[in-house]
Amino acid sequence: KRRGFPEVIYGPGKTTEQIVGIFGRLAAHNPNVLCTRTTAETAEAVRARLVEDGVGVEALEYEPRSGLLSLWREREVRYPGTIAVVSAGTSDLRVAVEAERCATIMGNRVEALADVGVAGLHRLLAVRPTLERARVIVCVAGFEAALPSVVAGLVPCPVIAVPTSTGYGASFGGLSALLGCLTSCAAGVTTVNIDNGFGAAYAATLMNRLGTEDPSR
Amino acid sequence: KRRGFPEVIYGPGKTTEQIVGIFGRLAAHNPNVLCTRTTAETAEAVRARLVEDGVGVEALEYEPRSGLLSLWREREVRYPGTIAVVSAGTSDLRVAVEAERCATIMGNRVEALADVGVAGLHRLLAVRPTLERARVIVCVAGFEAALPSVVAGLVPCPVIAVPTSTGYGASFGGLSALLGCLTSCAAGVTTVNIDNGFGAAYAATLMNRLGTEDPSR
Amino acid sequence: KRRGFPEVIYGPGKTTEQIVGIFGRLAAHNPNVLCTRTTAETAEAVRARLVEDGVGVEALEYEPRSGLLSLWREREVRYPGTIAVVSAGTSDLRVAVEAERCATIMGNRVEALADVGVAGLHRLLAVRPTLERARVIVCVAGFEAALPSVVAGLVPCPVIAVPTSTGYGASFGGLSALLGCLTSCAAGVTTVNIDNGFGAAYAATLMNRLGTEDPSR
Amino acid sequence: KRRGFPEVIYGPGKTTEQIVGIFGRLAAHNPNVLCTRTTAETAEAVRARLVEDGVGVEALEYEPRSGLLSLWREREVRYPGTIAVVSAGTSDLRVAVEAERCATIMGNRVEALADVGVAGLHRLLAVRPTLERARVIVCVAGFEAALPSVVAGLVPCPVIAVPTSTGYGASFGGLSALLGCLTSCAAGVTTVNIDNGFGAAYAATLMNRLGTEDPSR
Amino acid sequence: KRRGFPEVIYGPGKTTEQIVGIFGRLAAHNPNVLCTRTTAETAEAVRARLVEDGVGVEALEYEPRSGLLSLWREREVRYPGTIAVVSAGTSDLRVAVEAERCATIMGNRVEALADVGVAGLHRLLAVRPTLERARVIVCVAGFEAALPSVVAGLVPCPVIAVPTSTGYGASFGGLSALLGCLTSCAAGVTTVNIDNGFGAAYAATLMNRLGTEDPSR
Amino acid sequence: KRRGFPEVIYGPGKTTEQIVGIFGRLAAHNPNVLCTRTTAETAEAVRARLVEDGVGVEALEYEPRSGLLSLWREREVRYPGTIAVVSAGTSDLRVAVEAERCATIMGNRVEALADVGVAGLHRLLAVRPTLERARVIVCVAGFEAALPSVVAGLVPCPVIAVPTSTGYGASFGGLSALLGCLTSCAAGVTTVNIDNGFGAAYAATLMNRLGTEDPSR
Amino acid sequence: KRRGFPEVIYGPGKTTEQIVGIFGRLAAHNPNVLCTRTTAETAEAVRARLVEDGVGVEALEYEPRSGLLSLWREREVRYPGTIAVVSAGTSDLRVAVEAERCATIMGNRVEALADVGVAGLHRLLAVRPTLERARVIVCVAGFEAALPSVVAGLVPCPVIAVPTSTGYGASFGGLSALLGCLTSCAAGVTTVNIDNGFGAAYAATLMNRLGTEDPSR
Amino acid sequence: KRRGFPEVIYGPGKTTEQIVGIFGRLAAHNPNVLCTRTTAETAEAVRARLVEDGVGVEALEYEPRSGLLSLWREREVRYPGTIAVVSAGTSDLRVAVEAERCATIMGNRVEALADVGVAGLHRLLAVRPTLERARVIVCVAGFEAALPSVVAGLVPCPVIAVPTSTGYGASFGGLSALLGCLTSCAAGVTTVNIDNGFGAAYAATLMNRLGTEDPSR
Ligand SMILES: Nc1ncnc2c1ncn2[C@@H]1O[C@H](COP(=O)(O)O)[C@@H](O)[C@H]1O
Ligand SMILES: Nc1ncnc2c1ncn2[C@@H]1O[C@H](COP(=O)(O)O)[C@@H](O)[C@H]1O
Ligand SMILES: Nc1ncnc2c1ncn2[C@@H]1O[C@H](COP(=O)(O)O)[C@@H](O)[C@H]1O
Ligand SMILES: Nc1ncnc2c1ncn2[C@@H]1O[C@H](COP(=O)(O)O)[C@@H](O)[C@H]1O
Ligand SMILES: [Mg+2]
Ligand SMILES: [Mg+2]
Ligand SMILES: [Mg+2]
Ligand SMILES: [Mg+2]
Ligand SMILES: [Mg+2]
Ligand SMILES: [Mg+2]
Ligand SMILES: [Mg+2]
Ligand SMILES: [Mg+2]
Repeated sequence: KRRGFPEVIYGPGKTTEQIVGIFGRLAAHNPNVLCTRTTAETAEAVRARLVEDGVGVEALEYEPRSGLLSLWREREVRYPGTIAVVSAGTSDLRVAVEAERCATIMGNRVEALADVGVAGLHRLLAVRPTLERARVIVCVAGFEAALPSVVAGLVPCPVIAVPTSTGYGASFGGLSALLGCLTSCAAGVTTVNIDNGFGAAYAATLMNRLGTEDPSR
Repeated sequence: KRRGFPEVIYGPGKTTEQIVGIFGRLAAHNPNVLCTRTTAETAEAVRARLVEDGVGVEALEYEPRSGLLSLWREREVRYPGTIAVVSAGTSDLRVAVEAERCATIMGNRVEALADVGVAGLHRLLAVRPTLERARVIVCVAGFEAALPSVVAGLVPCPVIAVPTSTGYGASFGGLSALLGCLTSCAAGVTTVNIDNGFGAAYAATLMNRLGTEDPSR
Repeated sequence: KRRGFPEVIYGPGKTTEQIVGIFGRLAAHNPNVLCTRTTAETAEAVRARLVEDGVGVEALEYEPRSGLLSLWREREVRYPGTIAVVSAGTSDLRVAVEAERCATIMGNRVEALADVGVAGLHRLLAVRPTLERARVIVCVAGFEAALPSVVAGLVPCPVIAVPTSTGYGASFGGLSALLGCLTSCAAGVTTVNIDNGFGAAYAATLMNRLGTEDPSR
Repeated sequence: KRRGFPEVIYGPGKTTEQIVGIFGRLAAHNPNVLCTRTTAETAEAVRARLVEDGVGVEALEYEPRSGLLSLWREREVRYPGTIAVVSAGTSDLRVAVEAERCATIMGNRVEALADVGVAGLHRLLAVRPTLERARVIVCVAGFEAALPSVVAGLVPCPVIAVPTSTGYGASFGGLSALLGCLTSCAAGVTTVNIDNGFGAAYAATLMNRLGTEDPSR
Repeated sequence: KRRGFPEVIYGPGKTTEQIVGIFGRLAAHNPNVLCTRTTAETAEAVRARLVEDGVGVEALEYEPRSGLLSLWREREVRYPGTIAVVSAGTSDLRVAVEAERCATIMGNRVEALADVGVAGLHRLLAVRPTLERARVIVCVAGFEAALPSVVAGLVPCPVIAVPTSTGYGASFGGLSALLGCLTSCAAGVTTVNIDNGFGAAYAATLMNRLGTEDPSR
Repeated sequence: KRRGFPEVIYGPGKTTEQIVGIFGRLAAHNPNVLCTRTTAETAEAVRARLVEDGVGVEALEYEPRSGLLSLWREREVRYPGTIAVVSAGTSDLRVAVEAERCATIMGNRVEALADVGVAGLHRLLAVRPTLERARVIVCVAGFEAALPSVVAGLVPCPVIAVPTSTGYGASFGGLSALLGCLTSCAAGVTTVNIDNGFGAAYAATLMNRLGTEDPSR
Repeated sequence: KRRGFPEVIYGPGKTTEQIVGIFGRLAAHNPNVLCTRTTAETAEAVRARLVEDGVGVEALEYEPRSGLLSLWREREVRYPGTIAVVSAGTSDLRVAVEAERCATIMGNRVEALADVGVAGLHRLLAVRPTLERARVIVCVAGFEAALPSVVAGLVPCPVIAVPTSTGYGASFGGLSALLGCLTSCAAGVTTVNIDNGFGAAYAATLMNRLGTEDPSR
Repeated sequence: KRRGFPEVIYGPGKTTEQIVGIFGRLAAHNPNVLCTRTTAETAEAVRARLVEDGVGVEALEYEPRSGLLSLWREREVRYPGTIAVVSAGTSDLRVAVEAERCATIMGNRVEALADVGVAGLHRLLAVRPTLERARVIVCVAGFEAALPSVVAGLVPCPVIAVPTSTGYGASFGGLSALLGCLTSCAAGVTTVNIDNGFGAAYAATLMNRLGTEDPSR
């Protein structure tokens, strides 16, 4: 129904056998398939199964930080704008990478800007031109998650905040970052669940697609 | 900088004198001015001041449920799509109305759909055609806030969830609704702060504007 | 005292030796015995012990998703109605299965309806006739747990909500689902503890039994 | 659709004018009407309106502890069993009375047992015969809400726990009572929202009605 | 200074080497030594060290459920009354045993009453004579921890509530039990930290000792 | 049953009429009556009623900080020890006074030591001899509630901690003080509910009475 | 003992009579006196009392936003550096002003920089020279409190973060701002209680004084 | 920019390879390098790499309790005062050691005072002269974290509180200690994140440096 979107499997809580089965079935009928947050072992098992099924695996890739397994055969850029995926620290990369690759495989042009946390403002200001060019910005940050507030103040486009569970102590598993995003003093920020890079990519894609297929949409 | 956006005053924590002063100053140089969550008394004081200043008050309106005071002189529709503001129950109207009117004054075509909570699914399904026509949907719901999940499953556009503080007991001032929005099982939902109708309208406007001024944006 | 109910052992926090001992003793005097949330290893040890004791093990079954070990020898359906066990997603199955099997072994006719989460409303509406036939519905859902609200709006029977710990981030181990169930905007919903499939089955059985033995009860 | 149920208005967040309007309209077409948690002033305004409309007000009653306003004209007992409404302390009465009267007006035979908190066990044991006769028990308790656990251990029928906001300090507005109900060590207990006497009465009525109209239901 | 009290080591967060060292040193100069929450391995290492040091190990005992390692050489009963340690369920035994044994080794006469949770009131009422004889009662309960309220209503002596982390879901690691103890509707209950059997035994001993050494104390 | 204890009415949530009625009835048959947390107006109404009933009111006293209304006619000291009521700051006095007066009227010798918070250690050390003479210490403190830990380290008697709601911000209505008491690093501390001066006095009385009536008790 | 510090009265929870009494007594022996968070009425009463006592009131001032009443007679600047008090929004001024004036009266040179929230980064960057000149910075911010992280990244001096209760919904009375400060990704930030402008001023003064009286201090 | 500060790597969430790479690069250009919270294995790998690179490893040290890996080649004391690192219990040492060593390597003279919890006040009072000599005090405490309040009451210098996650049950991972520090009744205390020994050392260094390089700073 939603033309061009890959089929997506949510990995956690599924056995390798289940994932291999679902992935195999989806790969038979869809050009692009995603499985989020799975293990290298499961990725290997999927690869074996695809080979067995005679499906080419050149386009199959496992990204270890995010645990994203992707079969990306139809690589057309479908939407006009660019999605910028901005992240604060090294430990946020596992989430930023999930957002970046999911958005790419969903048919977007994506620019990733890592390690631009607000405590080193010069690094953030240095990428300002890229931020200003983006149609949608996905902002990935843990600890106090100040990044979305600063970014949204610099740009005129929608900002999707992804709080991460990066941090310790009073981070309370991402709760502090989440509350920070929700109470952002900058207008134009909306928020997704903690660590939900996929969800941010999905929402960003819906936004990037606006007006491109049906002028009133 | 953000052409066409009204100037906005956040009412709570400001004295009538402060609001009268700021509103008067803004009204002198801007066609449209908004003050959110203020009282009827303050609205009257602003009206008196504008009259005193020789500013016409035909376009000044106070909406009592939301406490929104608006001076709406430039009424051009600026963006191509429609924003649907969907709300679950009567007590959510104060927030839905804030979203609806803010979005309207920001230059959007808006359709308001009230009292379509998920416990009466037939009423929600009856407005499905309107939902499907929308470019962006703002979904306002308190208690368990199941509405954004159901709506996002029915439509292919971005859904902005506004949890409300409507409810009692285990609603914990809107916390339950907020958590419900954030953990929505439907992709495409992003969330703003509890009761933040203005913020949802603002983000929806940024989305509605995409691609309309600059094709890459 | 409660005729027809199996004896039930709560597995967690007991050693294999303890469970083997209790199960063996109960199996000597009761047709049906349940042990919830135990491991395959413990199930094997129980089996060995029953064999040793000369108890037939054809009716002993271990269900790996829920960890339920059941000895089900007396299989009479005791109560007139049907209990529907409805669940939202794949990861909720471990809880739904606990509810379904416990209810079955307690003497109920049970219908299980899986994967009918509210984000895909058509699947839920497709099973509406089954829901409308049920005497009691057990509704199992994680994440934002919107399912009980939607289901209770469709049917005229009691709905027992079982929030699950399925989810991540702002799911907070099932807290969001729990709050969602408790603040459901639909009347007729009551709630049990997070993941408590057994408790839901037990309460549903008490309801299904109403009026069947003693007309005033 | 749900034959025999009164129409119900949730009072909080509605103006007197709104309540008068809705109540008047409902009273024109329904024998029984309920408005929960409203004020004596609003009750008086409703009374005036009904008189004006030529509706008899003998059956209109305002209960000040709960704030329940009821028009109870059709007083038939519709269901076979008895609902017992058991409450712990004096301050829980406002909730117990809401449950008791709502259940009565919904067509149930109701027995109210007040001031039987567990710290005075003899008082609770003294009413045991009444508890054992009930088809459904609604258990209303604040502070630590130990009552549902003790009651459910004494009887073979479904117990609906209503935690109340009665208490101070670590009661946290009813949170402690709520958690106590949800984690009850007694099987057969299900829980509704804090202070939700109406919801408990509604669910109890659905249970009391089981098997009375349609044998499979 | 506090004559007769054993020296106590808190096990968690200490290495085997550290515990062996401290225990050895204490055993050289004190008749009785306690180490709480340690492992069987550490217990073995302590035993080896004591043997090496020529300290007799007949009085050394490791209790696996609680992880309590005790050297109990001076076994005099020092105080006049009896401390009853009452516990609700099987999984609370690990804490009840810690309380029971610590109190015993501190010089008290102790009576342990297990598996007397409030959902089976007859079992609790059956031990009432023992409860009434006690000078101090330690009440150990998880889940909703209703036991202290019921017990304190039956007896005229101080009740020390020990909430446990037994439970799942809305038990939140013992938080629900803790809040239940603190908001007990029964007067005469005081509370210690979750799972703190040792602390309860210590406080109970201070109470049992009152008036025995110095009449004004 | 508990000889010598006054009858106690919990004021909040009761109307003046209810309190006047209950107090009058109790005063007719009991030498001592307490009503906690009531208003000066209610106290006046009780006084009027007692006069009307011909009950002498010389022994009736209203303490405005705590809202305690007491009829104290039988003033015998019943128990051998002294209860020290120690409090940290000026705002804790409302709770300390409730504890002090309740304990006094229950028949204890009481010493009150106010304004001895730990930030001014010299003041606390100055009252050390009084602390060391006490049979039981009630420790009343808000904010971080460090006082019970320091006091319990100085004395060999039971310490009952009463956390108060004194504080702001991260005090969260007494939660921080409560958690501080429960996690006290000093052995011998037990805790009651936030602001529960009455409960502390009651438990302290049970302790002070130990061994005085029945040697084994 | 701490030379040069004014005496400070914490207003909340004290009656006007108490404050008048304490202030009068302190004013008799100290050049400077502070009373935080009091009302205009109390300030008037203090003024009347000082006049009555023959104390000059030229140096008495009441600041209405913060509720600070100050008697500031000895106006010497005692310490070498400047304390910058930076605040994010208009509603934070009540706290910023408390910090600013307390610090001034404690003998510091203070620079106040208001309305420099991170969503308008240019305003913050414009005051960078002042920030870089400061010896200590007090950073006052509500909502998500991103300001301390950004400021601490720009300067080499200690930053004291004061989270405020400014905000609504998921601000939870300042909790989100507090968690944001505590989990700041920038090193060099320490935090005080929500809205604690006085505490920040006090700590900043201790820092400003370092090395000025005793070289090793 | 901040002359003399070592480069610091935050260990958690980085692979051994990443840490080895970063550490190697930093060691090539900086005299001092810190990596916090890493493992002995990673430390060995870093050592091997430095040897390989021809960097001397005499100054490389791994501290197992804190997991701190330090290369400390430039050992000059840079600042005039002494930082005292005071800690409450044995389990707080892992955090105290992180603070102590980080502060030392940053160029401070440091005095460590362990095991001076408030329940044994005499031990704390015994080290009072050292406390009074300090320029800044870092106070490390878990459980109820009463230590900063007591210490700040004894000294005239800034106190940085480091709450630790030491504790169990109602310690809630350090939350109770954190709240205790934030609500300290003693003025002059500021707080850092739970277990954040490094952050405390960093802030203490900024304070110790005040006035030493630039008189106005
Ligand atoms: N990392 C992720 N986080 C949140 N939702 C996801 C994620 N990955 C997949 N999903 C959603 O989960 C759905 C698939 O769930 P399932 O059927 O359980 O595999 C997809 O349609 C996505 O909407
Ligand atoms: N999965 C479960 N969740 C909640 N309660 C259970 C579960 N399984 C068993 N129980 C209850 O635990 C009781 C047995 O507990 P135990 O004596 O500890 O084995 C049974 O009577 C049930 O009421
Ligand atoms: N301030 C108080 N805090 C807690 N419990 C109290 C207080 N005052 C009275 N109580 C208890 O409340 C009971 C009376 O409650 P009630 O019957 O509602 O008046 C007494 O027996 C006491 O146990
Ligand atoms: N606004 C404030 N916030 C926190 N602490 C304060 C405040 N104002 C005064 N204090 C502290 O409260 C103490 C006085 O308390 P009190 O004796 O109750 O007036 C002073 O020494 C200050 O340390
Ligand atoms: Mg922006
Ligand atoms: Mg959708
Ligand atoms: Mg229904
Ligand atoms: Mg039962
Ligand atoms: Mg008792
Ligand atoms: Mg002690
Ligand atoms: Mg800095
Ligand atoms: Mg100090």
